[in-house]
Amino acid sequence: MAEHESSNQTLEMEKPKPPLRCIVKLGGAAITCKNKLETINEENLSLVCQQLREAMATNSASKVFGMDWSRRAGDPMVVDFDEDPAMDLDTNFIVVHGAGSFGHFQASRSGVHKGGLQRPLVKAGFVATRISVTSLNLEIVRALAREGVPSVGLSPFASGWTTSRRNIASADVSHIDKALHAGFVPVLHGDAVLDNLQECTILSGDVIIGHLAQLLLPEYVVFLTDVLGVYDRPPIDPNAVLLKEIAVDEDGNWSIVKPTVGHLKKEVEITVAAHDTTGGMETKIAEAAGIAKLGIDVYITKAGTIHSLRALKGEVGNVPDDWLGTVIRSSKQVHPLR
Amino acid sequence: MAEHESSNQTLEMEKPKPPLRCIVKLGGAAITCKNKLETINEENLSLVCQQLREAMATNSASKVFGMDWSRRAGDPMVVDFDEDPAMDLDTNFIVVHGAGSFGHFQASRSGVHKGGLQRPLVKAGFVATRISVTSLNLEIVRALAREGVPSVGLSPFASGWTTSRRNIASADVSHIDKALHAGFVPVLHGDAVLDNLQECTILSGDVIIGHLAQLLLPEYVVFLTDVLGVYDRPPIDPNAVLLKEIAVDEDGNWSIVKPTVGHLKKEVEITVAAHDTTGGMETKIAEAAGIAKLGIDVYITKAGTIHSLRALKGEVGNVPDDWLGTVIRSSKQVHPLR
Repeated sequence: MAEHESSNQTLEMEKPKPPLRCIVKLGGAAITCKNKLETINEENLSLVCQQLREAMATNSASKVFGMDWSRRAGDPMVVDFDEDPAMDLDTNFIVVHGAGSFGHFQASRSGVHKGGLQRPLVKAGFVATRISVTSLNLEIVRALAREGVPSVGLSPFASGWTTSRRNIASADVSHIDKALHAGFVPVLHGDAVLDNLQECTILSGDVIIGHLAQLLLPEYVVFLTDVLGVYDRPPIDPNAVLLKEIAVDEDGNWSIVKPTVGHLKKEVEITVAAHDTTGGMETKIAEAAGIAKLGIDVYITKAGTIHSLRALKGEVGNVPDDWLGTVIRSSKQVHPLR
Repeated sequence: MAEHESSNQTLEMEKPKPPLRCIVKLGGAAITCKNKLETINEENLSLVCQQLREAMATNSASKVFGMDWSRRAGDPMVVDFDEDPAMDLDTNFIVVHGAGSFGHFQASRSGVHKGGLQRPLVKAGFVATRISVTSLNLEIVRALAREGVPSVGLSPFASGWTTSRRNIASADVSHIDKALHAGFVPVLHGDAVLDNLQECTILSGDVIIGHLAQLLLPEYVVFLTDVLGVYDRPPIDPNAVLLKEIAVDEDGNWSIVKPTVGHLKKEVEITVAAHDTTGGMETKIAEAAGIAKLGIDVYITKAGTIHSLRALKGEVGNVPDDWLGTVIRSSKQVHPLR
């Protein structure tokens, strides 16, 4: 995991009360149409939001109280105030989303991740990238709000987060913590940010998750993506085997616990998608390993499936046979008899 | 002006280099259609953005390099990279906008300004208000970016700003300052925020302006609204007289310098629009007076006119006869012979 230099202010927030239940990463590939510029995968996003609500629900019989009271693309606004609303939710979640088909074009075309704000093209790319990713953030906040999840957008740049040569330099989480305590679900995202050494860069959602996990120590972290989990070779290969449990030791080295190695290709290949300016599955696994080292279970699974619902509820710690996904955890936490 | 308790961190930023040139308030009434729910006054907004660019231009012959590279309402994206872009702008401006027909419905219907997040309706209203005002913020950032102004949205809630019984309690401006130094134009807005005493409230754009002016000491502040300035009675009254210059003394009392009092109604009436949850012209004048007391000229005029362009350029300090608007300034700054 990236080296994080944290301020004293952020370290004070390490143990919030009540403890944070879950940090969820909504992968860009899961909630957008990766190959269609700035297009949301509405069906998947809606499913993910419904499942998040279900995972938070303390009373599944409660009626959804929609919180997006804004017009949508020309529609008139309809807000039903007739009933006395209830909000039976354990909202102790943080959502972080990737960019998918938002922001990447703007960032890679201008080279924002390489820095150099003196160049007009980079400065314009910074502005254009932020416009694209914040418009996605707004749509995700709205989709959650429509499902009755009290979501609030927290843009890392607006929160004053900065980097030093692409690693987080300062990232005050005190207002994330305040928002959580007030009963809101903070929704963060990969963003263009200022960098102390190269003036600007792209801070990826995966790096944000690693940082938040370190400071806020959630019970578990869920990565929702467009494949079932981590495979021993590219998942389009028909012989690809889903790795169901990976153990990470103190040095960050990882080994496959389940299935047993006999079934597997010796060297696990990790593919990095070419369009992804902030790294693909490799970054994801590196960040997941960094989180697992802290003793926090990481579940990687496919968004909008029965498997993602179980993961969001935190019910897959024992890696059930009928659950499809990957659990990454500290080797100290792996049950010796399983 | 509201009593501001500032943190040490914010006070360190009092004298940025180079000095801030201007803080501009885009009044909600000027950039939205006040009586049409969540509808932007596209023509006015576009004019305001063009004038802001013109006020910033150091070389008026430079071609506009558009920075909004996102799709708009179904349109395909067209980004022209053929030319080597130039950016001959003095970007040392901050923009703060009101909500107009965005956010007010959501806030007033749920009573967010009165606090009480334990009530589901208030919590939902908080979420709904932020969705509405941040969607307006995104559209204003995009409109500025299309005119080649390197604008970045900075939502007060996301920046961790909080209030104590509606007055600003903490509002760290260090990242606004960093954004300015990096050559960006921060765009802030009236927002729903957490309140130390009543859990939540609405922080108005006018209060934000007062706070920023106090900490960042701009050369001048411009309020762009839907009337030419401050009148001695409601401006729809045919006998209403435009007050061209108002002096504010150290105690915040104000007197009319121009025109001379003989022409005026004795008691100046100030109207407060009923739909405005954060106060109308009265709050505006109180905030303007608070800023003027600091020795900073405040220009109030109508958006999208020749008068607003002159105000944005800072060319109306001597209150020209052919300029229509109101200058509010410290009585110490008023020229004794004029």
